[in-house]
Amino acid sequence: DEFAACGLSAVPSRSIRPPMVGESKANFECVVTQIVDIGHPDNGNALVIGEAVEIHVVASLLDGTRVDQAALRAIGRHVGNGYSRATDLFDITRPP
Amino acid sequence: DEFAACGLSAVPSRSIRPPMVGESKANFECVVTQIVDIGHPDNGNALVIGEAVEIHVVASLLDGTRVDQAALRAIGRHVGNGYSRATDLFDITRPP
Repeated sequence: DEFAACGLSAVPSRSIRPPMVGESKANFECVVTQIVDIGHPDNGNALVIGEAVEIHVVASLLDGTRVDQAALRAIGRHVGNGYSRATDLFDITRPP
Repeated sequence: DEFAACGLSAVPSRSIRPPMVGESKANFECVVTQIVDIGHPDNGNALVIGEAVEIHVVASLLDGTRVDQAALRAIGRHVGNGYSRATDLFDITRPP
């Protein structure tokens, strides 16, 4: 039981059978739409494509238009055991 | 000419026709292997899957095993015009 091992709560989803993570600030309920074989046949992988049928975001993260990126405190995935905290936020205005 | 507009140099690739970005610390030469239609037919998109046939990384980024994440100074993509600098790196050891 990965929930118990991590000290997290399983809460019921609205539209799908697998539970959501109660402590998570966002949960996506997804159904599988396609499984695409990628890579070479002898050492390939399967790309699982899903459709989010329900999206849950805690109200405190919503700034009226989008998810507040500073409040979200997102984590970036690097390589191996490496991650980064997305604390150093900035904007680039797109050229016309 | 997007290279000229950005003040970047186009340098020849080894295996494909489109040029590489000379100033980039890494270039991937890719060929398209599949184009997968995703989303609903009336407002969907195409997912273009490529195979990297050549990978170029400057030697100064290689630590002997992997790309040095601190030296890489990666940028994270958020939403709209938002980005983050991956300066706040940390490790999480995977549970057994």
